[in-house]
Amino acid sequence: MDTGKLVKKLEEAGQSHLLQFWDDLSPEEQAEMISDLESMDFNEINGFFKNAMEVSSHSKQESVDSRMEPVPREVLGSVTRDRELLKGWEKEGLLHISQSKVAVLLLAGGQGTRLGVSYPKGMYDVGLPSHKTLFQIQAERILKLEQLAAQQRTCCIPWYIMTSGRTMESTKEFFSQHNYFGLSKENVIFFQQGMLPAMDYNGKIILESKGKLAMAPDGNGGLYRALGNQKIVEDMEQRGIAYLHVYCVDNILVKVADPTFIGFCVQKGADCGAKVVEKTNPTEAVGVVCKVDGRYQVVEYSEITLATAEKRSADGRLMFNAGNVANHFFTLTFLKDVVNIYEPQLQHHVAQKKIPFVNTQGQLIKPDKPNGIKMEKFVFDIFQFAKKFVVYEVLREDEFSPLKNADSQDGKDNPTTARHALMSLHHRWVLNAGGHFVDENGTRVPAIPRNGPAGSVTPDVNQNLKDGTDLPIKCEISPLVSYGGEGLEKLVQDRELRPNLIIDLRGVHELVKNGI
Amino acid sequence: MDTGKLVKKLEEAGQSHLLQFWDDLSPEEQAEMISDLESMDFNEINGFFKNAMEVSSHSKQESVDSRMEPVPREVLGSVTRDRELLKGWEKEGLLHISQSKVAVLLLAGGQGTRLGVSYPKGMYDVGLPSHKTLFQIQAERILKLEQLAAQQRTCCIPWYIMTSGRTMESTKEFFSQHNYFGLSKENVIFFQQGMLPAMDYNGKIILESKGKLAMAPDGNGGLYRALGNQKIVEDMEQRGIAYLHVYCVDNILVKVADPTFIGFCVQKGADCGAKVVEKTNPTEAVGVVCKVDGRYQVVEYSEITLATAEKRSADGRLMFNAGNVANHFFTLTFLKDVVNIYEPQLQHHVAQKKIPFVNTQGQLIKPDKPNGIKMEKFVFDIFQFAKKFVVYEVLREDEFSPLKNADSQDGKDNPTTARHALMSLHHRWVLNAGGHFVDENGTRVPAIPRNGPAGSVTPDVNQNLKDGTDLPIKCEISPLVSYGGEGLEKLVQDRELRPNLIIDLRGVHELVKNGI
Repeated sequence: MDTGKLVKKLEEAGQSHLLQFWDDLSPEEQAEMISDLESMDFNEINGFFKNAMEVSSHSKQESVDSRMEPVPREVLGSVTRDRELLKGWEKEGLLHISQSKVAVLLLAGGQGTRLGVSYPKGMYDVGLPSHKTLFQIQAERILKLEQLAAQQRTCCIPWYIMTSGRTMESTKEFFSQHNYFGLSKENVIFFQQGMLPAMDYNGKIILESKGKLAMAPDGNGGLYRALGNQKIVEDMEQRGIAYLHVYCVDNILVKVADPTFIGFCVQKGADCGAKVVEKTNPTEAVGVVCKVDGRYQVVEYSEITLATAEKRSADGRLMFNAGNVANHFFTLTFLKDVVNIYEPQLQHHVAQKKIPFVNTQGQLIKPDKPNGIKMEKFVFDIFQFAKKFVVYEVLREDEFSPLKNADSQDGKDNPTTARHALMSLHHRWVLNAGGHFVDENGTRVPAIPRNGPAGSVTPDVNQNLKDGTDLPIKCEISPLVSYGGEGLEKLVQDRELRPNLIIDLRGVHELVKNGI
Repeated sequence: MDTGKLVKKLEEAGQSHLLQFWDDLSPEEQAEMISDLESMDFNEINGFFKNAMEVSSHSKQESVDSRMEPVPREVLGSVTRDRELLKGWEKEGLLHISQSKVAVLLLAGGQGTRLGVSYPKGMYDVGLPSHKTLFQIQAERILKLEQLAAQQRTCCIPWYIMTSGRTMESTKEFFSQHNYFGLSKENVIFFQQGMLPAMDYNGKIILESKGKLAMAPDGNGGLYRALGNQKIVEDMEQRGIAYLHVYCVDNILVKVADPTFIGFCVQKGADCGAKVVEKTNPTEAVGVVCKVDGRYQVVEYSEITLATAEKRSADGRLMFNAGNVANHFFTLTFLKDVVNIYEPQLQHHVAQKKIPFVNTQGQLIKPDKPNGIKMEKFVFDIFQFAKKFVVYEVLREDEFSPLKNADSQDGKDNPTTARHALMSLHHRWVLNAGGHFVDENGTRVPAIPRNGPAGSVTPDVNQNLKDGTDLPIKCEISPLVSYGGEGLEKLVQDRELRPNLIIDLRGVHELVKNGI
């Protein structure tokens, strides 16, 4: 095998150590390594490293706290404070959807490491009565929204799905096996985010085995580069897309292509918008949308002092309370500028990590403190380039319950909290449509169950505890029946319903407990 | 044994069935039963039953929703919205404490059934580094507050502790064993709430065994009757008490005799006040303070419809958001009127329960649906009699984390959440006093840990996760050092501290991890 050219390339890039175990490799391993190395642009990678480290050391010196300003009221739309405007925004959003001008873009490159599974998170079943996966729930919401928006003619909401090298094949196969959950195959478009090598603090690429580089996805901000190099932007243009809704796969409550959010952004003339939930506790680990030096960005919880996190406005709310939930709006015009002009100017963020590596003796070492960095961009890094940026505040209990951890962990953002959040929402939909729940004795159960919402602190200081149901009521409504709670009156009004309840296209079903 | 008189008394009261197994009882059991029965006033109990059932059926017919009004701004004090007034209120409160005019009254009649222990909750050790019990934490806060308030002369905050028949002996013994945690024995006054029998729906008292009635404490509102019949009010008068702070034992963050709360209530000229936390999620299982038919009361979460729970004010907050945390203020004048005049007019609430009973064959039956009632009054039932009622809103993360459940349950209000809430508060105290925490490598850790506050939902949507500490920082400050975060600057300012950290009267201690 002729490795001369490659050796020279590595030497020039200061990465010759990657071949230190060359003679130990089998011919197959050698071939694979050559293929990996030949596809990489080491000059570019070294440049990324240099710039990222520079930015990182620079940003540590200069605290962001003193430069932060809250989101001004005039760019904020709120489902609790602008209630009289919601219908208008929704109508506007539905109009654009009906004209097939809206697409959704799913960030699904993550691998569910913390969740403890080896397959893409979207394939996870949180244990709903229907056992639908996150992908299926989202697909059915898209389907339903297409129906709601369609007036005279049918419309389409293309679904762009960004996977990573690690999730691409299994994701595509899963969709194919499930017949795209009723969507048209040609309107589900997969593309792949890039990978970057992990590097030590001296800029040397880390070997995870003798013949393999330690590689990691380039962050959810890898979106923009991938959109460009895989001609996704062109595809959007050809389809006549004008507006994008970008979101993360792990939020079971996500309102895919939320017409109210889109309508709000369009009416405001925004080129970029972020959906947020109110941060109410100063030490909640959530990034906040704010202005820094006059430009919008997300400041992460780990970057600010407690004093800043605790600052309050005159109305008593936290001053920096626009909690980022990774739900964004872009116009295609803005997205094109981001892909072509702005994103390439951005440096990567540095994440210090414990990265398993082979030492010079060829032994695999698992470090117990950080020994190198991964380089990532974030999807929100480009907020600063928006000409007109807006923020849309929604209710956490209605729209945000991410799946992050396994149930064995400490009770946050896990399959149980996700399942409960969805069933609690659907329970409320039924009540607001005039339905009632009764227990096994036929007695109506209180609207608010004793344990309250998933993930909340339940004070329960009154001693008047009834013997009743302690669990959230099991109630699941198919997205094919209702996108956001609409259209349920004809099914449940004035009815007394027993959980477990499923409402799907075939009707209203009361299931025997534990009998599913 | 002459039971003739008793038989007649029971016959007249329609409770003769209580003696149906008389001949099966041993002489000791017979003696015990007679003693139990002779101490009871069956006419009174039958009256309680009749009235409670009447009120209960009446209140079911007439929804409370349409009669509810929110707390008006002018009676509300808020730590987030009235920040410029807090110092003044605190000063006022400390003045009254310094004059020994303030007492605290602890509701500790509960038995920790849900917590899974057979001893009083106050004796529970949630696993803090110091392993202090709830009783000790509260005692030390009282001690510290006495020191803070004392100017020229010493002062005293008497501590009245209401136990029940089930917790009296063990509670008294615990305090005695622990030397009253440094308090003077004569300033810790125990008294006992009453018990009432459980009854079936026909008003027959339930037998839990052939010779034993099913008895239960009469609710935390049993306080008022107990205060009267055990001459506690007289004791308060003799000591010159003017103001009372009443609270429940299970809140690890409770600010016992909170001077700011007391000062606020006194400055407002209130005879009765309630501390609340903001309810932010409509389906949170917490009672709310509000007006009903023009009078203040707590409406329980189970009493209202979802539509009412979801109502919002123009500022976007929930309209009924004054979440009751069982922290109340009374003037002694008001308390005397309650004990002597108002409380006897109040009917008991009915709680339907599954009550184990012996059937006519003498077999013990554990019912699987409610078969009878317990009668209870609530401590807040008397709000309606206040001439000037005020509400004081505080931050949940600073003041409220109740211990309800065992750790094995679903992660709410358990020893872990209580412990984390206290350590998170103390962590913030250190940061706000100018201290810094560093990890094992000497690197400063972010002010906001990845997992955020105990019991919160942690969105964590940013992928920029650092390898760092996932747990809340272990930090515990003795109440003897600081009551509410004050006085820590001289100990921690500009210091780099390693957890686990304990600050007590002997100084600042960094403990080796897992080495306690």
